[in-house]
Amino acid sequence: MDDCIFCKIAKGESPCYKIYEDDFTIAFLDISKDCYGHTLVIPKKHFKNVIDCDGEIFARVMLTVQKVAKHYVNNLGFKGINILNANNKEAGQSVFHLHFHILPKMNESDFDSWPKLNGTFVSFEEQLEHLKLN
Amino acid sequence: MDDCIFCKIAKGESPCYKIYEDDFTIAFLDISKDCYGHTLVIPKKHFKNVIDCDGEIFARVMLTVQKVAKHYVNNLGFKGINILNANNKEAGQSVFHLHFHILPKMNESDFDSWPKLNGTFVSFEEQLEHLKLN
Repeated sequence: MDDCIFCKIAKGESPCYKIYEDDFTIAFLDISKDCYGHTLVIPKKHFKNVIDCDGEIFARVMLTVQKVAKHYVNNLGFKGINILNANNKEAGQSVFHLHFHILPKMNESDFDSWPKLNGTFVSFEEQLEHLKLN
Repeated sequence: MDDCIFCKIAKGESPCYKIYEDDFTIAFLDISKDCYGHTLVIPKKHFKNVIDCDGEIFARVMLTVQKVAKHYVNNLGFKGINILNANNKEAGQSVFHLHFHILPKMNESDFDSWPKLNGTFVSFEEQLEHLKLN
């Protein structure tokens, strides 16, 4: 898409700090500088997010996520990895080109990895009846 | 593994609130009740996390994550989906059988999806030199 910054990065039209690239995906540093090593993995082809992504491309994105995560742990000595993804603005998505975040940690105290959730009083049985897929 | 609760769930030896199952993966409700619809997706075969997981099995796990996420949005009307995963205790992993979290949201205000990060003063150039894979 013409106005998509991640499409421009994928095409080489905008610069990035590139960690890894293959025919289908590219991994680069997030520009937020909110933690050391914050890395994004995107497909080169434009999809809004996980919900509309082609399955084969999605699998390739995730295998690149795995490749980078393994590199950070097995080769570089990071102790932990958080993988995060947001779909739609209601979930906090701000760039509408599918991307997975990789947050590497050297220490447990580097940051709190988990969002603050509000709990639910709905029973598991009611949730299951609503949500089950098969 | 004999003492792994998720292996017991995968084998049907421990109960769960099952959302979806196929030959390789199973999706079920997280027991924390920290948000409505908090769902876990695991491989039936034991892997500790993304770092040690077989690539083909990992792709199957992620395609089940996608299938459930699409069901929640396209069939059930959730507005947003967060996908999270932790590798090793330093990243907050507490059950050492690979699992991805799916957090569906009806409204942006349901919860804050993003962890609190501490920032970094290390330049992008230095990070890239350390982290790049190819």
